[in-house]
This record gives sequence, structure tokens and C-alpha cells, in this order.
Amino acid sequence: MPRVFSGIQPTGELSIGNYFGAMQNYVKLGEQYGREAIYCIVDLHAFTNPAAYDKDLLTQRTFDAALTNMAVGLDPEKVIFFVQSHVREHTELSWIFTTQTPLGDLERMTQFKDKAGVLESIPAGLLMYPVLMAADILLYKADTIPVGEDQTQHIELTREIARRFNHTYGDTFPEPKAVYARDALRVPGVDGAGKMSKSKGNTIAILEPLDSIWAKLRPAPTDPARVRRTDPGNPDKCLIGDYHKLFSDLDTLDMIRTGCTTAGIGCVDCKKALMPGIERTLVPFQDRAAELRAHPDTVRDALAHGAQQARAIAQPIMQEVREKTGLFF
Amino acid sequence: MPRVFSGIQPTGELSIGNYFGAMQNYVKLGEQYGREAIYCIVDLHAFTNPAAYDKDLLTQRTFDAALTNMAVGLDPEKVIFFVQSHVREHTELSWIFTTQTPLGDLERMTQFKDKAGVLESIPAGLLMYPVLMAADILLYKADTIPVGEDQTQHIELTREIARRFNHTYGDTFPEPKAVYARDALRVPGVDGAGKMSKSKGNTIAILEPLDSIWAKLRPAPTDPARVRRTDPGNPDKCLIGDYHKLFSDLDTLDMIRTGCTTAGIGCVDCKKALMPGIERTLVPFQDRAAELRAHPDTVRDALAHGAQQARAIAQPIMQEVREKTGLFF
Ligand code: SF4
Ligand code: SF4
Repeated sequence: MPRVFSGIQPTGELSIGNYFGAMQNYVKLGEQYGREAIYCIVDLHAFTNPAAYDKDLLTQRTFDAALTNMAVGLDPEKVIFFVQSHVREHTELSWIFTTQTPLGDLERMTQFKDKAGVLESIPAGLLMYPVLMAADILLYKADTIPVGEDQTQHIELTREIARRFNHTYGDTFPEPKAVYARDALRVPGVDGAGKMSKSKGNTIAILEPLDSIWAKLRPAPTDPARVRRTDPGNPDKCLIGDYHKLFSDLDTLDMIRTGCTTAGIGCVDCKKALMPGIERTLVPFQDRAAELRAHPDTVRDALAHGAQQARAIAQPIMQEVREKTGLFF
Repeated sequence: MPRVFSGIQPTGELSIGNYFGAMQNYVKLGEQYGREAIYCIVDLHAFTNPAAYDKDLLTQRTFDAALTNMAVGLDPEKVIFFVQSHVREHTELSWIFTTQTPLGDLERMTQFKDKAGVLESIPAGLLMYPVLMAADILLYKADTIPVGEDQTQHIELTREIARRFNHTYGDTFPEPKAVYARDALRVPGVDGAGKMSKSKGNTIAILEPLDSIWAKLRPAPTDPARVRRTDPGNPDKCLIGDYHKLFSDLDTLDMIRTGCTTAGIGCVDCKKALMPGIERTLVPFQDRAAELRAHPDTVRDALAHGAQQARAIAQPIMQEVREKTGLFF
């Protein structure tokens, strides 16, 4: 049975873009793989993004990332769900890989070049990030890595690190494969200017109150072809149409497609028709989140239990690494 | 009271150069500082030296480094003596420092430039080495670091890492100072061609049998002024004279100085006169080493106990770092 590993960034408030882009898929994979689905909130990686890292917020963001994932259905009783820094072996394995990875391989990473290019002083963590990521994955001998396409190069590096280790020390690690969820969706931002992303300030949060969501949707741009109420439009060229595809039932989808293309409905009607689907999807998440927030120990205990389970897998693998590399034990 | 930290490289057989250059000083500092003297066999650093690292020998070399230091008088009951990889917090703190240290600061290190300059493929560990070294030291809030002068730049970087952390997170770490032992001696190699060093193959091992030592001393070069037996020489221009200063009592020193400068003795006589001092110094070490080798658990138990004591210091400090940096606990 394959073993799935995914790192979850504790970057603060999670959006419906995160939900449809990744979290929903984690829940599904969790149901499919159970204990072989390992989800790790990567708080040690958070440091490598100086723009996102905030010492006074990281603890809260880690907690919120856990809470929100649990609220949308990630079941810590079924999968293994924990915080990276709770399993010390991540940095230990990362160091060993650091000593075996050519600097040139790291300097070639596109993400490093893009991020370093705009910085005056480049923190070493930005260069070393993919080595810690390789350790995250290989520490569990995971072979199936659901990622976005921007991570393809890092997974390829992980494969090389695994190959190099196996070559020197004998067969130890699998060469993990990136899997791109078929239904991972690129959710557009409410400004209609590309992908939903926190840095663009165009997000709808999973835990956002409905009136706040409506306040964002009401002024949102729609198909520019609909200059007048009587102009027909195309839901495929409209972010509200995209949102309907995420949230609405087939009847509503049918109704707005006909209404839009025939100018039978106005855009405000169409936006109003979106709200029931949003409510049906998000309110159960928000209710569950409120309950978890009222009982924070449920989240803390789940993470502590998850860390125990993660260590139970990681420690024998790290012990194998220690024996093979000659560390004294 | 200051706290001393020193890393001991598990590079294999230790020589009298290591003894007079560092180990003797560790023993003395240990007597002076007791539990505030922390000695760490840095097996995780061994990986950064591909020339010295050997997966099949590292375990043995770590054990031998422990045994030899104990044989020459390092008392694990008095000081804290342990193996780096037994305290997982070293790599954890190292990762945090990695995210905060500018790449440029690391690329500027003279040792990195020297070592990287001759390599076709540079392992990332060579660049990151001084960050792990800073973590080794600061994990114990050590402030007094006995080192060779080749480490001055690394200690300066450690100070900068401490300063940067304190600036961001509030006063946490001391800025450690390098101390250069007044009586750390540069011991010449038996080939008379500069410093004793393993890479030059000109060493006398601490645990070397006396007949093997004699076999090296007998053909060793002496003051070139003594072309003929009747030519006077100068012990200050002769490695045998240097060895006498390390091993011989004052009477012998007096005798060989007079004998050499007046051509009263020959060089072979002078070398023979050196052997009692070597025997007096090394044989007790060798006896203790033999006893430890016959009871390897004495060494293993001492290191396990040392790791416990090291963790007892490191864990609250790491906990302080976790709280200040926002790691979830
Ligand atoms: S009717 Fe709906 S889908 Fe069509 S343009 Fe307006 S908001 Fe977009
Ligand atoms: S007599 Fe001794 S000190 Fe003088 S040159 Fe010979 S070996 Fe050296």
C-alpha cells in the first residue's frame, strides 16, 4: 500500500482556494489511505518565508491550520496528523541529507532563484528548504506526494536525494512520486485578477461569516460582456460562474447557465443564488470549527497523539539511517 | 561561572599532537569547570568532511574518540561528555539558525572557500557546517569556547547568530568568546616537515606501542647542523628537542641541551633519552585505554549518562527557543 505524505503550511487563515485546491483532496485521500496518509503541519518551514513568518502569530497559525483542517473533515483518528517540530527526527535527517546534497542542485531550484532574486540578503533557509522537505517525506518512506505543480522540481530533488542515499548506503528509501489531484482546482480570487491567494488579498476564508462573504461577492467583477442587464454572458468567463461550479447543485448550475446566456437573470440574482451553496458547504465547517475552538484541547490532544504515531514510524526509519551512516547509538 | 563547550571530531586515531594541542587542555578545563565543561563528540559534523567520513568506520571512530579522551584523563563523572547525535536538539536549533543566517555570511567563511575551492561538487553541508557549530554552542548557552585559531571566524559567526537571535526575540543567548589555550602546543610531525597531522602521515598516536614509536623516532631528522657526530647542534632547531620539551623531566632536558650544544651526545643517544619520558606519559594512558577496551560498556554508559546530562541543559533552552520563535508545544 502506498504511503501518502503532505506538508501543510501554517500560513494563517485558510481560504476556499486552499480547500478546493488541497484540503478537500487530503480528506479524500485520508478516507482512502487511513494510517498511511500522513499530514504534517510544517511549522519549521514557516521560518523560511520571512514575508509570512511572524513569531507572535506562528503558534496561533499552527493551531488554526490544525483546527481548520479538522473542521473540514480531516479525521485525526483515521489519518496521522501532527506538527513537524514535534518530531525531532525531521531536522536530524535533514542534516544528513544536507551533507550529501550538492550546493549546485539547490541553487538550481527555480523557486529559490525566484525568491532569492528579489531579496537583498538571502537567508540560508531559503536554499536549504527543499532538503528539509525531502527529509519530511523520506523520514516516513512516503512514496505518494500530493502537491501542486510548483513542487515538481522539489519532488524530483527528493528522488535524487533518495537515490544518492540508496546508492551509498544500500536500498533504504523509495523514490517518491508527485501526484497531482485530478480535481485540485485553481480557485479564482474575488477580484477576478487570477488565482485566489492571501498575498493578493482576494480570498474568501473557509471560516468567514456569510455576510462578510456576501460583502465581497456583491461588488465582484463578472463577465465583462454583460455591460447592460440585457446583455447575455457566459458563466465560463466569470468567477461567479466558477464559484457556482464549486458550491452549487446541478439545478442551480443549470438555472444560472441558462439565465446568464439568455440574459434571463441579472448578475446580482446570480450572486444571490450562489449563497445557498456556500452556506451548505461552509456552515457545517464553521460549526465544527466553533466547537473545536470552544474545546481547544481536542485539537491539542489530536496533534499530540498524531506526533506519537508519527514518531512510531519515523524512529525505526531514523534508527536504520543511523546504523547505515555510522552514527553511534 | 562561565560555561565551556568544545566539539571533539571523531576523526579516528588521536595523536600526541591532539593530546598536547587540545585534549590535555580539556582535561585541565574539566578539572576547573566540572559540570560547566561540556565536551561533545561531533559525529554529525564528521559527515561534512567527505575525505575523513567513512560510513563503516564512524561508529568505531566515535567510540575510539570517547575512549581515548577518557584514557588521557577526561573524567565523565566530572564533566559532561557525550555524542552530538544523541541530543536531537542540535539539528533542531541548527535549522532555526539556518533560516536566520544570510547565505552571504556563510559563503564568506575562509574555511568554506578553501575547502570548496578544490572540490568539483560542493556538498551543502560544507556551507552549513558553521551554523550547526553555532547551534552546538548556543544550545548550552556556552560562552567560553577553547578552539584553535582556525576557528576564530566560526566563533565570530556564532556571536553574530546569537546577536541576531537576541535582537529579534529578546535576550536569549550569550555571545561566546573563543579562548586560545596558552599552553596549546603545535607539535611537529616525525618527518620534521611541519605540524603533526594525520593527513601528512607523520603522527605518533597516543595509543601507539613504544617499539612502533621508536621505529619512527630512530630515522627522524634532527638539527641539520649536526652533519658529523662531532658537530654541535641546537635542540631548539630539532624536533627531537621539541619532543623532549613535551615529555622529559628537567634533568633530562638539561642533559640533552648540554650534550647537543657541545656535541657531547649523539642524536641516537638523545632519541633514546626521550623514550623514558614518552613511556612515563603514554603508558598510563595506554593501560587505561586497554582497560576501557576490555570493558566497552564503561565508555557506552558514560556517553549515555553524558547525553542525559546534556539534554537536561539543552531541553529547557530549546523550549525557551520554541516559545520565543512561535513553535507549537
Ligand atoms: S449571470 Fe452569473 S455567471 Fe453570468 S456573468 Fe453574471 S454573475 Fe457571471
Ligand atoms: S642531539 Fe638531540 S636535540 Fe640535538 S640535534 Fe640531535 S636529536 Fe636533536
